[in-house]
Amino acid sequence: MSGESLDALKDIIPENRLKTELPEMEDYCHDEYPDIFIEPEAVALAENEDEISKILKWSQKYNVPVTPRGLGTGLSGGCLAAEGGLILSLERMKSIREIDRQGLFVTTQPGIITKDLQDAVEKESLFYPPDPASLESCSIGGNVAENAGGPRAYKYGVTRQYVQGLKAILPDGERLSFGGKLIKNVSGYDIAGLICGSEGTLAVITEITLRLVSKPAQVIDLLIPFPSLRDAAETISDFLSSGIVPNTMEFMDKAAIARSSKFIQKELPYMSSQAQLLIQIEERENIDSLLESVQVVAERHNAEDILLAENPVQQELIWQARRNLYEALKQSEGSMEIADVSIPRHRIPLLIEGLRKISEINSTEIINYGHAGDGNVHVHVMQNFIESEEWDKRKLLIMKEIFNLVSSLEGVVSGEHGIGFLKKKYLKYCLDDQSLKLMQAIKKTIDPENLLNPGKIFI
Amino acid sequence: MSGESLDALKDIIPENRLKTELPEMEDYCHDEYPDIFIEPEAVALAENEDEISKILKWSQKYNVPVTPRGLGTGLSGGCLAAEGGLILSLERMKSIREIDRQGLFVTTQPGIITKDLQDAVEKESLFYPPDPASLESCSIGGNVAENAGGPRAYKYGVTRQYVQGLKAILPDGERLSFGGKLIKNVSGYDIAGLICGSEGTLAVITEITLRLVSKPAQVIDLLIPFPSLRDAAETISDFLSSGIVPNTMEFMDKAAIARSSKFIQKELPYMSSQAQLLIQIEERENIDSLLESVQVVAERHNAEDILLAENPVQQELIWQARRNLYEALKQSEGSMEIADVSIPRHRIPLLIEGLRKISEINSTEIINYGHAGDGNVHVHVMQNFIESEEWDKRKLLIMKEIFNLVSSLEGVVSGEHGIGFLKKKYLKYCLDDQSLKLMQAIKKTIDPENLLNPGKIFI
Repeated sequence: MSGESLDALKDIIPENRLKTELPEMEDYCHDEYPDIFIEPEAVALAENEDEISKILKWSQKYNVPVTPRGLGTGLSGGCLAAEGGLILSLERMKSIREIDRQGLFVTTQPGIITKDLQDAVEKESLFYPPDPASLESCSIGGNVAENAGGPRAYKYGVTRQYVQGLKAILPDGERLSFGGKLIKNVSGYDIAGLICGSEGTLAVITEITLRLVSKPAQVIDLLIPFPSLRDAAETISDFLSSGIVPNTMEFMDKAAIARSSKFIQKELPYMSSQAQLLIQIEERENIDSLLESVQVVAERHNAEDILLAENPVQQELIWQARRNLYEALKQSEGSMEIADVSIPRHRIPLLIEGLRKISEINSTEIINYGHAGDGNVHVHVMQNFIESEEWDKRKLLIMKEIFNLVSSLEGVVSGEHGIGFLKKKYLKYCLDDQSLKLMQAIKKTIDPENLLNPGKIFI
Repeated sequence: MSGESLDALKDIIPENRLKTELPEMEDYCHDEYPDIFIEPEAVALAENEDEISKILKWSQKYNVPVTPRGLGTGLSGGCLAAEGGLILSLERMKSIREIDRQGLFVTTQPGIITKDLQDAVEKESLFYPPDPASLESCSIGGNVAENAGGPRAYKYGVTRQYVQGLKAILPDGERLSFGGKLIKNVSGYDIAGLICGSEGTLAVITEITLRLVSKPAQVIDLLIPFPSLRDAAETISDFLSSGIVPNTMEFMDKAAIARSSKFIQKELPYMSSQAQLLIQIEERENIDSLLESVQVVAERHNAEDILLAENPVQQELIWQARRNLYEALKQSEGSMEIADVSIPRHRIPLLIEGLRKISEINSTEIINYGHAGDGNVHVHVMQNFIESEEWDKRKLLIMKEIFNLVSSLEGVVSGEHGIGFLKKKYLKYCLDDQSLKLMQAIKKTIDPENLLNPGKIFI
């Protein structure tokens, strides 16, 4: 970034919202993936659409890359300045514009924390279902950019299924407004759906209109321990084909639970079991019959118990292992590599078995948990005490083996974390040439100079 | 189409699957919109991907437009050869490739009738929810191209929410395969979502993988008559904000019911009521509490009765007016113009009131029905006995007034029928310049010569 371009930037963003030195830029040099640090040339905290439009025009004029950033909780490096230039932070644009109680919509700026948005709509007896694990620290704009999921996606679907309207600024600085408080819309191509999940490479999202549903009066949580991973995996498969649709169907293996327990320094229920399922059921369903079906299927697969949690205290006990898991793994000895694989959901038993073999052959611990009901599993390859040089070699080999396994199961390399720049080299495992070419052509059409979040998704 | 290009086409498609003369091409000169007839230069009935790929390469070589066509039940002219050239019919590609009972997916060719697909998966206790009114005659490929909805979209969402994988041939003849039996996928842009709803302008769909759900054991249907349109509209609004989520929330006005009754030559229940709501409730919900809530809300808005239908005979009685409505209107004296408007759903009362005024001011009958719970209303402007020359003037004026009303309510010009070429001139009422430019740029990138279904969506 030349002195001239920096001066021009200062005309757009006042100095108190512009960072150019390291200590104050530090928070913008990483996301939540382990051991990553990429320094941008500057960070601008935008406060309105006008500033963003000017920044993108400035980017074109001075040929400086701009990387939009929500609250930096991603796991694929998508919000980092991979090719230098400016980080454009949306963190200050966090106002809710309108909660439409009658129409069941919320219109919001992108920078608000997802949990804050959820709390605000729940006060109005409404409900925004997508619940990424990072919901207490991630932004709704980041959720839209990455098409975030979460446990409740099993019943309610992912972020894209709630985005009905978007305002965004295109790479040339022009403002776009698409859709709105509409459930159905076949008036031209689905621009909102295209921007959602495009990881900030096509436009900077400045306002989002989300469909809401009514708030469930009560939920019941179940923890079901199993004597083997296989039993848990087959239970999931069996739930699916039995038409049992709870809100969530999460699973954790024994190693995951142990790490979480150590991290929160607390005994957890059924720690000796090889795997656990976490299931949530809603009051608006026919609870008794649903509970009975769950029980029948779980017992068929050797469930060791069914723990019921009907109040917030019990529920916290059941969910705390899962909620603290990622932080626990991150704090472990050594580093780790994470894969966010998505496969046909009934092939979960095959995936789990394949991962076990990869772990054994490579003498490396692999910890798995995630959204089993959707076929979306977070796979953590742990360094533990493997020496650094050896780890660097081994982790690459293992990741290749994992993605070969995923590819053989007709899965994809990301279910909800996105590709960012950390997973670029694996994209070929799940995209054919024509799909890739088409995506690149769309990117080139919308951002011909490749200045908006360059170096992401595509090699 | 030159003699040379026709000869080359005959090398791709055998003569018994190629039509070039009028009597045998007649079925391909219209869709289900009234009074429309556009003759293509030829019609080819493809049987496999290889033929389609060759046809698209042929189209590029000889500069001949190609318009893909399912079973021709659209309502916006999307499958007609608006700029001449070849109609590429997918009607022969109607095999179901696989019903995956364990994973809850179906993979199918595009030409199968939607109802046939639904029947096939229901035999396996599975369920494909989208149910456009034309389901007994439309194709699943057409549903994907138009992102079809239907009554059950209220609870279950539209076609796009079920398309997890697509195979398609791009305008240059290259084959693309995207997604698959996957629930979650953030591995690059959402190509399936972009192609779905693009009305055959971006690619020819050759194989579709759809997510299924388990089949509800039983449904209960309710017919609720109201003394005024306003009461019915406000009931819908009130259902929404009360969090009552039945499968369907359809409405019909008195004139619509009368037409249907006349068409099927049969008295229908509550024909003297000004409006009726058709509500379907599923057994897997907590039926008793849902029924009670429906009753409380409906009675608050002066419901005249609540008719319950619990078996197929009763259900047929309740739904027959709705099912026969479009055909009834089409058979009426004179022609009609149809608008498929989608507005914020709680503004249904304002829309209905606005339409009543437009009808009065212009002394023209306007008949309304549709998917009120989604804010998606089918508006029929009836010619009746208005003399042709006067009708041609008046209908244009009225359509403009309708779309001005829709625009003032922040709605869009199509909820599920698409733009095709019949609604092109109205697209400006709901798209801003940037959205339009972006769509056109995407079209140009994928189909630079504008040979795949040209003359559609954009002016």
